[in-house]
Amino acid sequence: MLPAPPKALVFDVFGTVVDWRTSVVREVEALASRKGLRVNGPAFADAWRAGYAPAMDRVRNGELPWTKLDRLHRMILDGIVAGFGLEGLSEAERETLNHAWHRLEPWPDAVPGLTRLKQRFIMAPLSNGNISLITDMAKNAGLPWDCVLGAELVRHYKPDPEVYRSAADFLDVEPAEVMMVAAHLRDLRAAKAEGLLTAFVVRPDEFGPDGNPDLAPDDSVDVTAMSFDDLASQLAT
Amino acid sequence: MLPAPPKALVFDVFGTVVDWRTSVVREVEALASRKGLRVNGPAFADAWRAGYAPAMDRVRNGELPWTKLDRLHRMILDGIVAGFGLEGLSEAERETLNHAWHRLEPWPDAVPGLTRLKQRFIMAPLSNGNISLITDMAKNAGLPWDCVLGAELVRHYKPDPEVYRSAADFLDVEPAEVMMVAAHLRDLRAAKAEGLLTAFVVRPDEFGPDGNPDLAPDDSVDVTAMSFDDLASQLAT
Repeated sequence: MLPAPPKALVFDVFGTVVDWRTSVVREVEALASRKGLRVNGPAFADAWRAGYAPAMDRVRNGELPWTKLDRLHRMILDGIVAGFGLEGLSEAERETLNHAWHRLEPWPDAVPGLTRLKQRFIMAPLSNGNISLITDMAKNAGLPWDCVLGAELVRHYKPDPEVYRSAADFLDVEPAEVMMVAAHLRDLRAAKAEGLLTAFVVRPDEFGPDGNPDLAPDDSVDVTAMSFDDLASQLAT
Repeated sequence: MLPAPPKALVFDVFGTVVDWRTSVVREVEALASRKGLRVNGPAFADAWRAGYAPAMDRVRNGELPWTKLDRLHRMILDGIVAGFGLEGLSEAERETLNHAWHRLEPWPDAVPGLTRLKQRFIMAPLSNGNISLITDMAKNAGLPWDCVLGAELVRHYKPDPEVYRSAADFLDVEPAEVMMVAAHLRDLRAAKAEGLLTAFVVRPDEFGPDGNPDLAPDDSVDVTAMSFDDLASQLAT
């Protein structure tokens, strides 16, 4: 039971709202096909994503100044292309591929669930993706946000506490009036530490058939849901 | 003629998208009526708005630290209530009235025009209103923004140049790929100075029957439109 219902829901995006892996696999395989190349799409997507946390750590520890996720994605991409036989991609092709993250497709329940939740709550992404990435994605996929919050606005990457605090501050509500929705316990633990409510949405397929997703809630979780539709039902919308 | 079409449109909100004066008059007169008081609604709305530029100047010149527009509105409100016979309003009533700015109603052409423009352009408010104010307003009025930009994100009020630059930066486009849409030449001149395209939308009724609105474009204006629908037609959407 929640002590009181939230006023706003803020969402992790990669993996929670959108199926980044399937989308990236599709884009890189289509590009390779057009170039007459062969690529192991799932391995490529996993390698790209594997560079994500280390790249943000370089910003977090001061090795890099504040750097938008688009730039981090590009740095990781440039580091892995040779290992996948894609070193011949032109600058324009690399930029187009890098923007695959702007075109990620939502999980099937995402748009209907978000639309239902939007009837009752202020809805915003709270992602490490830069504002243009998340805005393009929303426009492309029809994600019905009320505004776009996230790491870029405070120049800190989750799970830095500044990001969670900023959601309550920008929305002018108490931290306990904001619910963080994510498929990742690390995100929810950090949100809970800043006083937010938390909803764990299980995404068993995020990392593919050999992945190791979070499947069971821990003490940081207020509500566990199997989909956004399930979350809407539990929040009585 | 534009040198090249914009990728994104950013909008002044108070007066350009919403009819602040009619909305504030309605709210204060309804409140007074419930309290058995009489108030000159139009004079009250004009007095409240007259405090807006001087209050932002106090932030701009460092007399006040960064202060959200909601707080500035409340400071101005507290300064004018006695002059309008409203000094008996409770704290809760003052806060509710202060949130009238979150509930401003759009000009009749705004929602259809924005909806049409959204088919082709990235659309964001670029207002001095704080993020929660603009977000609440959008949710209440059905304004179809793709994301919410504005003064609060850079802690500078328009016409400070940082606000205009931030729109291009957050959207990852060149300044010349962003068009500032406003009913106020002061806003457009400042946008043009930072390299943005500009669209002047004439709002002859913004300040009421005795107002002194901008009615004719000057050299800072790239496109002049009589409504958002007219703007959409001129931008070939």
